Amino acid sequence: MTGPFKKLSEEKVFKDPVHRYIHVRDELIWKLIGTREFQRLRRVRQLGTTYVTFHGAEHTRFNHSLGVYEIMRRMVENIEEKENWDPEERLVCLSAALLHDVGHGPFSHSFEKVFHTDHEHWTREIILGQTEINAVLRTISDAFPQKVADVIGKTYDNKLVISLISSQIDADRMDYLQRDAFYTGVSYGHFDMERILRVMRPTQDQAVFKYSGMHAVEDYIMSRYQMYWQVYFHPVTRSAEVILSKILHRAKHLYEEGYSFKDEPRHFISLFSGSITLEDYLKLDEAVIMYYFQMWQEEDDSILKDLCDRFMDRRLFKYVECDPSTQMKIWPELLQLFKEAGIDPAYYLVIDSSSDLPYDFYRGGEDEERLPIHLLMPGGELRELSRKSDVVEAISGKKRTDHKLYFPKDFLDDNSTHKEIKNRIKTLLMTQGG
Amino acid sequence: MTGPFKKLSEEKVFKDPVHRYIHVRDELIWKLIGTREFQRLRRVRQLGTTYVTFHGAEHTRFNHSLGVYEIMRRMVENIEEKENWDPEERLVCLSAALLHDVGHGPFSHSFEKVFHTDHEHWTREIILGQTEINAVLRTISDAFPQKVADVIGKTYDNKLVISLISSQIDADRMDYLQRDAFYTGVSYGHFDMERILRVMRPTQDQAVFKYSGMHAVEDYIMSRYQMYWQVYFHPVTRSAEVILSKILHRAKHLYEEGYSFKDEPRHFISLFSGSITLEDYLKLDEAVIMYYFQMWQEEDDSILKDLCDRFMDRRLFKYVECDPSTQMKIWPELLQLFKEAGIDPAYYLVIDSSSDLPYDFYRGGEDEERLPIHLLMPGGELRELSRKSDVVEAISGKKRTDHKLYFPKDFLDDNSTHKEIKNRIKTLLMTQGG
Amino acid sequence: MTGPFKKLSEEKVFKDPVHRYIHVRDELIWKLIGTREFQRLRRVRQLGTTYVTFHGAEHTRFNHSLGVYEIMRRMVENIEEKENWDPEERLVCLSAALLHDVGHGPFSHSFEKVFHTDHEHWTREIILGQTEINAVLRTISDAFPQKVADVIGKTYDNKLVISLISSQIDADRMDYLQRDAFYTGVSYGHFDMERILRVMRPTQDQAVFKYSGMHAVEDYIMSRYQMYWQVYFHPVTRSAEVILSKILHRAKHLYEEGYSFKDEPRHFISLFSGSITLEDYLKLDEAVIMYYFQMWQEEDDSILKDLCDRFMDRRLFKYVECDPSTQMKIWPELLQLFKEAGIDPAYYLVIDSSSDLPYDFYRGGEDEERLPIHLLMPGGELRELSRKSDVVEAISGKKRTDHKLYFPKDFLDDNSTHKEIKNRIKTLLMTQGG
Amino acid sequence: MTGPFKKLSEEKVFKDPVHRYIHVRDELIWKLIGTREFQRLRRVRQLGTTYVTFHGAEHTRFNHSLGVYEIMRRMVENIEEKENWDPEERLVCLSAALLHDVGHGPFSHSFEKVFHTDHEHWTREIILGQTEINAVLRTISDAFPQKVADVIGKTYDNKLVISLISSQIDADRMDYLQRDAFYTGVSYGHFDMERILRVMRPTQDQAVFKYSGMHAVEDYIMSRYQMYWQVYFHPVTRSAEVILSKILHRAKHLYEEGYSFKDEPRHFISLFSGSITLEDYLKLDEAVIMYYFQMWQEEDDSILKDLCDRFMDRRLFKYVECDPSTQMKIWPELLQLFKEAGIDPAYYLVIDSSSDLPYDFYRGGEDEERLPIHLLMPGGELRELSRKSDVVEAISGKKRTDHKLYFPKDFLDDNSTHKEIKNRIKTLLMTQGG
Repeated sequence: MTGPFKKLSEEKVFKDPVHRYIHVRDELIWKLIGTREFQRLRRVRQLGTTYVTFHGAEHTRFNHSLGVYEIMRRMVENIEEKENWDPEERLVCLSAALLHDVGHGPFSHSFEKVFHTDHEHWTREIILGQTEINAVLRTISDAFPQKVADVIGKTYDNKLVISLISSQIDADRMDYLQRDAFYTGVSYGHFDMERILRVMRPTQDQAVFKYSGMHAVEDYIMSRYQMYWQVYFHPVTRSAEVILSKILHRAKHLYEEGYSFKDEPRHFISLFSGSITLEDYLKLDEAVIMYYFQMWQEEDDSILKDLCDRFMDRRLFKYVECDPSTQMKIWPELLQLFKEAGIDPAYYLVIDSSSDLPYDFYRGGEDEERLPIHLLMPGGELRELSRKSDVVEAISGKKRTDHKLYFPKDFLDDNSTHKEIKNRIKTLLMTQGG
Repeated sequence: MTGPFKKLSEEKVFKDPVHRYIHVRDELIWKLIGTREFQRLRRVRQLGTTYVTFHGAEHTRFNHSLGVYEIMRRMVENIEEKENWDPEERLVCLSAALLHDVGHGPFSHSFEKVFHTDHEHWTREIILGQTEINAVLRTISDAFPQKVADVIGKTYDNKLVISLISSQIDADRMDYLQRDAFYTGVSYGHFDMERILRVMRPTQDQAVFKYSGMHAVEDYIMSRYQMYWQVYFHPVTRSAEVILSKILHRAKHLYEEGYSFKDEPRHFISLFSGSITLEDYLKLDEAVIMYYFQMWQEEDDSILKDLCDRFMDRRLFKYVECDPSTQMKIWPELLQLFKEAGIDPAYYLVIDSSSDLPYDFYRGGEDEERLPIHLLMPGGELRELSRKSDVVEAISGKKRTDHKLYFPKDFLDDNSTHKEIKNRIKTLLMTQGG
Repeated sequence: MTGPFKKLSEEKVFKDPVHRYIHVRDELIWKLIGTREFQRLRRVRQLGTTYVTFHGAEHTRFNHSLGVYEIMRRMVENIEEKENWDPEERLVCLSAALLHDVGHGPFSHSFEKVFHTDHEHWTREIILGQTEINAVLRTISDAFPQKVADVIGKTYDNKLVISLISSQIDADRMDYLQRDAFYTGVSYGHFDMERILRVMRPTQDQAVFKYSGMHAVEDYIMSRYQMYWQVYFHPVTRSAEVILSKILHRAKHLYEEGYSFKDEPRHFISLFSGSITLEDYLKLDEAVIMYYFQMWQEEDDSILKDLCDRFMDRRLFKYVECDPSTQMKIWPELLQLFKEAGIDPAYYLVIDSSSDLPYDFYRGGEDEERLPIHLLMPGGELRELSRKSDVVEAISGKKRTDHKLYFPKDFLDDNSTHKEIKNRIKTLLMTQGG
Repeated sequence: MTGPFKKLSEEKVFKDPVHRYIHVRDELIWKLIGTREFQRLRRVRQLGTTYVTFHGAEHTRFNHSLGVYEIMRRMVENIEEKENWDPEERLVCLSAALLHDVGHGPFSHSFEKVFHTDHEHWTREIILGQTEINAVLRTISDAFPQKVADVIGKTYDNKLVISLISSQIDADRMDYLQRDAFYTGVSYGHFDMERILRVMRPTQDQAVFKYSGMHAVEDYIMSRYQMYWQVYFHPVTRSAEVILSKILHRAKHLYEEGYSFKDEPRHFISLFSGSITLEDYLKLDEAVIMYYFQMWQEEDDSILKDLCDRFMDRRLFKYVECDPSTQMKIWPELLQLFKEAGIDPAYYLVIDSSSDLPYDFYRGGEDEERLPIHLLMPGGELRELSRKSDVVEAISGKKRTDHKLYFPKDFLDDNSTHKEIKNRIKTLLMTQGG
């Protein structure tokens, strides 16, 4: 085949520990993988700071992106057995799957909170801007990059395509649950994806699932639930995340105050000043961040130095559970005591909350709309999943939140100064932890 | 238990995807894992550039070191069921297993070749020098660090202990074969470790294996053979390695020539000048290297810039097989043609050889002595493995070498200049590749 | 070691696909496995007729019994690390685990319903009667067999021991969920048993689980839930079970009516007459049953012959879902129509109901008491599982029942006779199936 | 689609623990699986007496036959991507794969040796005779059954098709290695089948393999080698096989001598007299055999009774290795001593030999021709595997044979009679075993 939808003369494969092989037959996909913006994903870990808790979780977004592509490829193959698809629509699907995370930077979660950036914005910029990826996409047609961006931005006409990559059960989630389970080594995260794909039926707006496969879908929802609480929200991981955020805050603060860094933090300047360009953004990867953190271990500012030591050498904050209501009462006293003890609470006393909505069948009036999962009943009608599944019903729409108070226990245990104040702090915290 | 051999009040575990759990009961081990020198291993990948070929292979030496420790822990447990061990000897074993790779830096293979450093030297320095690791080891006794270093350096009195960590079938190899297979996703690398450990019998000089378990040992040898040729010596990985070496060479060359780098390569200076200290060495990790490679993508020197672009964006050299004898004949012409085409052969024409000796029962008179594997026969006598196993005998002592010639095919395909010369080069290379 | 608690001179192992190895160190266990009553379990499949649905499920109760023993061995090892146990108590545990199913006959479920036998009764008889098993157990002490029987019968003094083998989370369930999942090939049935065993804490009455391991317990409960509905209650399996029961009913009926079998059903006579002895019982295995079913394929009685043909050649009944309330209305008409069509509804029209109580924290006043699972909270108090787990709470105490109506669709599709009546039946059934 | 090559309205799947799912799209295949002759394979274990050694190995030929079909289905799919196939040829392949073992009876190995039957003969009879299978095959065309039989009989015109099902690397072997490894639980038997299928290239006479996939093929050959020696030729399994053969011999002998069995061995009579019909043959399954063995445990003939006790209760013969040359010397004395001790050597002293030729590139002039495996080199020429692979070369054409002498050690240990003779026997045997 020649022309825009050109096939490779021979299929290429990547060995993948999760899906065994990633199959590439389209020249377009092969070329997209080879672009520098896509290769950059090798330098951004998939699970941010999770590796401090689960040492196996060192895989990158490159690894995951190939997996999402592969699942999408199988989905599209299934759908093509059932209905005719425009060959371009197929490439839109595959490209969107491959590129859906291309805008992620290092430790996105913290960076986005501290610097108010947004990986979805950067994904769009990379697809539509002056990049190798854009050039490759344009070989299909001038309009092609925008189509791919629209799918990822959820504004594409064909809602079915959007749902395959972004819904409560999509190629993205199916890959990351399995992949993160594989690399962390936890026993959750297994479900029968082959069966889910086989009972998937395309409709105009979304993919639905034959009722006979409901249990496989249930199993997937439970996997997700377990992975969230056992892996994604693990308190030790969050401790590292808290320190990371505080490092970024401190560095920004110092920069704004005119602090003179021993080594000019060139990669950060446009971030600090809110004027980051696509070119700057693409240079940010985890290697760069870790380089600066290592450099900052030698800065004069004791807070920046200490936080970087903690992050690099894994000397994390400890935590106690905290109940938001009682917390309000002790908070002013805690702040005061930290200050008296010479420990700046702006950096050393942090409340972190996690919450998950494992499956949501309806949340009216909210910004981000989540399409519920529908079952295709034997008679042909659609039924929302939680109406048929006791297990899913049990966890539907229940937002579970937990709050933790993070602090440097080693500081409090250091009795060389402020011994009494520190003991008072510890007593307060322990009460909280009850 | 108190005193030097103190146990943790409760066993700690790490979730590990290969061994399921890593169990830590000794305070010593727990503290060693927490040191900054050990945590640094999280920033050094286990398989160097292999991730460019097998995207799953993003695991670090931290990951592997815990695994070696865990296997050693199981070995020691097995041995303790059979004979009494000094409790300190046990800790020597566990510490040596955990720390055996602690001196590795980023991309050790290339760094050691280019800068003539030696990770075993650094391992010794880290264990015996002014480090957190040394401080933790000394809590056992002043003599303890030296014992651990001696095991790793293979000069320890108790030869059995050395053999457990460094022989043809040891905790190190058993971990990396399984772990690298797991992360790359290849189907080799599986063998019945549980059985190997169960048929292992301590003797004065080494561990031997009951004859009834010979097939499990055979399977391990075959695993090793397959992993070498399928993973460790993969030509695409070696292409990245070749480029990496050339980057280091070029940067050193430029430094020696007084080239003015846009950003001073501080981390490299003592390496370039051959005066590297332990403190300098510990700062070298993959993040730092990748930071510089990214910076060098913007250098004025076109060779350094090009090689860094290639490495970061995975634009690798292609290769042809080369037969050393015929190669000698075309080499002078090739060099000449490269120069004429304006492509510096010192950086763009590289012969790389790999060789493996999958199992060696005896190599008299060589520097590095490899102890053969012995089987314990039903009658009590020992027999060297290859005398009983046809399969092992078949591959014993056979050094298999392959030679490849690496070059930038994209340069040669660029017809804008020196078209004829480049065609002549390609013809020569293709003949070679036959 | 000599005397009653004698150890084997060398540990024996069985290769097991689920637990990798089954380890036997006690001479008692080794000898029990060698008895003819235990070997007989090789001729009784673990999952009865499930193999007609999941062809992989051909494993026997021998296979499972070794697995339960192995889990118990690991449990006891864990407990012994925490408290001292009487060495005899340990052997009581291991023996009870190994022998808990020894009284099972072929297709127990159907046999027990049709002939009112009870495998627990036979287990007791085998342990206490004149058997090789009894003789082996008596080598420990005269009182030993009774102790083992008491554990299995749940009347043993040490309630902790009972709970290890028979509670909502015990060695039996943990083995069969994993094993049945393994052999059927379904993706349910996986949970982190290693973690469950590690967080298990013995108390006086039962084993409880550290709160930190709650999610592993949750995962186990969900596994159980999925296995019940996906495997154990699979409607096709139940169809084979229905036919099996009807064969037994018909043969008994014929025997009682004085029908003259071509080949005297010697093995069945004491069953038919309700006078079965232990010796007779031990001769019943699946081979014997299948032999007779094959013989009966040549009997003159058309019902017996047809049912046996169906069972042997897998020509099963079809089914429709049935709602008990509407079913009551059409039942009389259906019975009448079947008779008119010449199809005896006593054998060809069957309602089968399945129900499961996935986890039950309390069912006061019921015969069979099920101990709830308790979590050991950080403060030391116990909390019932469903009070801490949303997921478990959601499915607790909810008895889920489904009813199906089984019938020979091929008979109804045969239009050579009674065409109109049969069409009327089909219409009625289809309405039901709504 | 209608007509002879009719597709099912919806794909059917079987859950399979080895291949995950078995996919059936052709009505022909679905109907073949439903025939009584195919269902009968559920009553014949795949590995005969192996379950006495590896308790997991309880899977049947039904299980394996579905697996071979599935691998063939994937092979054909691969080939169809590369060249056009006649749709009938495709069905010939699938049917032959599914039915290749349909003529196997219980414990084929022993039965064939004792009664000179031949499962390949029965396979042909079943396919061509008056059976449900034949009737289903004829729905394609009258000539179709013969084609399927020709493939299995290796006389089919299209040699490529034959090679897919019967060569040194075919669907049959690829399934059984993986399946038997899975069910026994051994760690051998794993190889990358997906890769082997992908590098497979059809030629006129056979399937060849791209050179780039050589290591996957090597791994398969090694798997085979390990499975033979670790599983298929396990001496304990052979002990059960020896006893089984002797039971059959004894029963035949008694029958020929006019012995009056308590229960007439109807199923055996035509076997004993060499006049077995297809109908008789199809009634033989393992259930029937086990039924008789149980009955014979109550016969008066002490040899038949003892051998059946041994088989049913797993009281096996012990063995010593025996060297054929020295064995010749002690043989006459051993025979004599056995007779003197009152132990009939015709039943109680057995030499059993196993031999395997793991891979054979050429055996000129032998009856059964084994096609060597060929590699497709980059230049397009074919090379025989062992010329490129050191490992395969090492084990090629080397017939490895081992000889064992089986005997009832318990008889010899019984000192109540002939104590001195028995001791002399034991001494002789021990010398042998050296």
